[in-house]
Amino acid sequence: MADSPNCDLTSLSPLQLFERVTEQGEKVRALKAGKAPKDEIDAAVRMLLSLKLSYKTTTGQDYQAGLPPKDLVLINNGAAKEEDEDLVDPWNVQTSNAKGVDYDKLIVRFGSSKIDTDLINRIERAIGQKPHHFLRRGIFFSHRDMDQVLDAYENKKPFYLYTGRGPSSQAMHVGHLIPFMFTKWLQEVFDVPLVIQLTDDEKYLWKDMTIEKAYEYARENAKDIIACGFDINKTFIFSDLDYLGTSAGFYKNIVKVQKHVTFNQVKGIFGFTDSDCIGKISFPAIQAAPSFSSSFPQIFNGKENIQCLIPCAIDQDPYFRMTRDVAPRIGQPKPALLHSVFFPALQGAQTKMSASDPNSSIFLTDTPKQIKTKINKHAFSGGRDTVEEHRKYGGNCEVDVSFMYLTFFLEDDDRLEQLKQAYTSGELLTGELKKVLIETMQPLVAAHQERRKQVTDEIVKQFMTPRKLAFEF
Amino acid sequence: MADSPNCDLTSLSPLQLFERVTEQGEKVRALKAGKAPKDEIDAAVRMLLSLKLSYKTTTGQDYQAGLPPKDLVLINNGAAKEEDEDLVDPWNVQTSNAKGVDYDKLIVRFGSSKIDTDLINRIERAIGQKPHHFLRRGIFFSHRDMDQVLDAYENKKPFYLYTGRGPSSQAMHVGHLIPFMFTKWLQEVFDVPLVIQLTDDEKYLWKDMTIEKAYEYARENAKDIIACGFDINKTFIFSDLDYLGTSAGFYKNIVKVQKHVTFNQVKGIFGFTDSDCIGKISFPAIQAAPSFSSSFPQIFNGKENIQCLIPCAIDQDPYFRMTRDVAPRIGQPKPALLHSVFFPALQGAQTKMSASDPNSSIFLTDTPKQIKTKINKHAFSGGRDTVEEHRKYGGNCEVDVSFMYLTFFLEDDDRLEQLKQAYTSGELLTGELKKVLIETMQPLVAAHQERRKQVTDEIVKQFMTPRKLAFEF
Repeated sequence: MADSPNCDLTSLSPLQLFERVTEQGEKVRALKAGKAPKDEIDAAVRMLLSLKLSYKTTTGQDYQAGLPPKDLVLINNGAAKEEDEDLVDPWNVQTSNAKGVDYDKLIVRFGSSKIDTDLINRIERAIGQKPHHFLRRGIFFSHRDMDQVLDAYENKKPFYLYTGRGPSSQAMHVGHLIPFMFTKWLQEVFDVPLVIQLTDDEKYLWKDMTIEKAYEYARENAKDIIACGFDINKTFIFSDLDYLGTSAGFYKNIVKVQKHVTFNQVKGIFGFTDSDCIGKISFPAIQAAPSFSSSFPQIFNGKENIQCLIPCAIDQDPYFRMTRDVAPRIGQPKPALLHSVFFPALQGAQTKMSASDPNSSIFLTDTPKQIKTKINKHAFSGGRDTVEEHRKYGGNCEVDVSFMYLTFFLEDDDRLEQLKQAYTSGELLTGELKKVLIETMQPLVAAHQERRKQVTDEIVKQFMTPRKLAFEF
Repeated sequence: MADSPNCDLTSLSPLQLFERVTEQGEKVRALKAGKAPKDEIDAAVRMLLSLKLSYKTTTGQDYQAGLPPKDLVLINNGAAKEEDEDLVDPWNVQTSNAKGVDYDKLIVRFGSSKIDTDLINRIERAIGQKPHHFLRRGIFFSHRDMDQVLDAYENKKPFYLYTGRGPSSQAMHVGHLIPFMFTKWLQEVFDVPLVIQLTDDEKYLWKDMTIEKAYEYARENAKDIIACGFDINKTFIFSDLDYLGTSAGFYKNIVKVQKHVTFNQVKGIFGFTDSDCIGKISFPAIQAAPSFSSSFPQIFNGKENIQCLIPCAIDQDPYFRMTRDVAPRIGQPKPALLHSVFFPALQGAQTKMSASDPNSSIFLTDTPKQIKTKINKHAFSGGRDTVEEHRKYGGNCEVDVSFMYLTFFLEDDDRLEQLKQAYTSGELLTGELKKVLIETMQPLVAAHQERRKQVTDEIVKQFMTPRKLAFEF
């Protein structure tokens, strides 16, 4: 048997593979027990790891001694979580690493592509201006088929943007703005229509919440989204509860997706169980359908094949992997994607941000004083315990939340680089770095609040009315 | 082992039964191969059939060699079908009895109530006229909460009617008219609004059919339904594919039902499996939602608590058992029901009627000649083999399909009774009974065709436009 056993293992059944892994594990234990030469043990261990990899590739599950494969639950499109791997799905983001989720590993696991320098340069050539700092700094770090979108754009073929939000509460924090800030930039540089889905039905299904409350949150959240500065002539914002009852095309696409996805598949992708309500089980089709232009006949004049580009946080990718799988089977183009990293909680990248904990982030309703206090009291520091040590050894930007927040919100590249150098060298103290963040966030949040005040119910109504946008199709 | 093995097999698990069937199959093959005496082979075959029946009764599935039982599909609300019980669900009606399904047993199994003389008399008092012959003859034989509807009616509280059809093809037969004929009568005598659901989405999900085709069938079927004579000012007919995209209330009720029903529940009620698409799994909520008046805000002025009465064939009851279970949990009244028996195929009450077999029933498009030929050639007779025997022993109305059809379509009670007496006594021959049926059906179908011709696309459009009806709420 060769050192690289995958070649001849592909034809084995999950059970056969399971038995091979078990055998090899016993062999390794025997070699170790018998104090065999290190080379021999190493070779056997390599073989064991290789067999475990084959087992995982075939079954989508980690090998577990004594647990033969059955009822294969494929998490994240077949790639099950490895021990010490980050957990990332639409409802959970967990990592044990203070630097946050390992995004390079996530790209491999999800099967997406890294946004590399070549792609960023190509975007720059296409739009004729400097790409957004979210691209330059790897905040949007992964994509699917972005090159196809650029091909189309260069050939004057239209595309449109689709993003969304689950309106789980009135309280939005600055992290919630990331996809919208980026989407606004994309809309401006490419000059394309944008649809924004508010999944109030999802929140009703998942939370202990009335339909009326979910719809109210949707309208409140719409105000914060509109305050990001979207062009009313180019943007359609919709609540599912509302739009499903007013669109000729939306439900038809939902039911098409629902016909082509089985319970087994959503079980694998989203981890649903038999005890989940049938609303949750069929919901993924509702998040999928806006990826198809025929869901918006009023915007696209009934045209079916306009390419869609979805900027979103990477935890939403499972929905769109499913969508891309279904698309060709219902005669629709696959949506392209741009994935962002997660926004860290003030307490550190490995803690969970929670809308119910006001100290876990800076909220869009915070006063300048609240912002100052939160950052000073709660922002996890990468600095040293004493000023003397900090001066001597320097701070650690990779775990410092103030620095992380600045990478999101401080647009000036040179200034950011200076701060990084000064903090890392120990020249800049934690308190000083926090001061920079406070001075960055206070005017940013105040300006947002000012813009939000201008967003009347009438403006929300206009954004949320199905209508033609300022584009011809 | 006794010849009738069912007695001691009831305690066996599905897997044990599977193994017994497999063993017995091998025994039969061995006996045949060894050219054993015919008696011995026959006994072994009988045992095999008996074991297979037990297997099916226990698991709800046919025995398939090499496929051990798993994912047990519990038919009819978790209670697997008992031996020699009829199979009745929205997709299957099976009985081995020439008289048709045993409806008294079905009432017990479904937990509904028999429409007895007391209830029929009460209806007569309430409406001040003779009840429809479908009630008098037990064609509508079972109900849920009809007394509550009458309570409300007597107290001048409003209710509305809801019925429907799955538009699986253009070809509708006379049996499809039964619920509509009865609903029309109910609407007239109670003077109430009526909504008719055409589940084109269901047909798209279940059949190999495009959305466009399903919608086309819905509109074609609407013409036949309208031709029954419904009042355009009091009736709203809708296609799901259409109405879901135009109603403010329908989707909200669907998602409410979907939140309160789990996959486990629909698995139990409808026999869905993990391999079914998520559209099928969530569809029952779409058939449930029209039971709530808030699905039709344009008719009921947004009122939530108008009582609903659903006339339908008993195979649709699983949907509404589920609906009645959910209703109180979403603050809605339970719909009441009136259940009809099944319409028999020409070939007999135990054979399956099929839209793809033109000889299995009288279709609404049949010419007088086709009707005559079909009845003469295919209508299963309860008569004797020879005229002499028939005169001597008489015919059997309980299995005679011509007589069954007359109970549906011959309104004159006295005439029907005379025919029954004459046929049973042997005075009336099969050919003569068939002649009466031919003379009943020919003008009935011709009149339907005449009325259908008057139903223009414009009229269909009016019936299918969401609008206020001639009632104040």
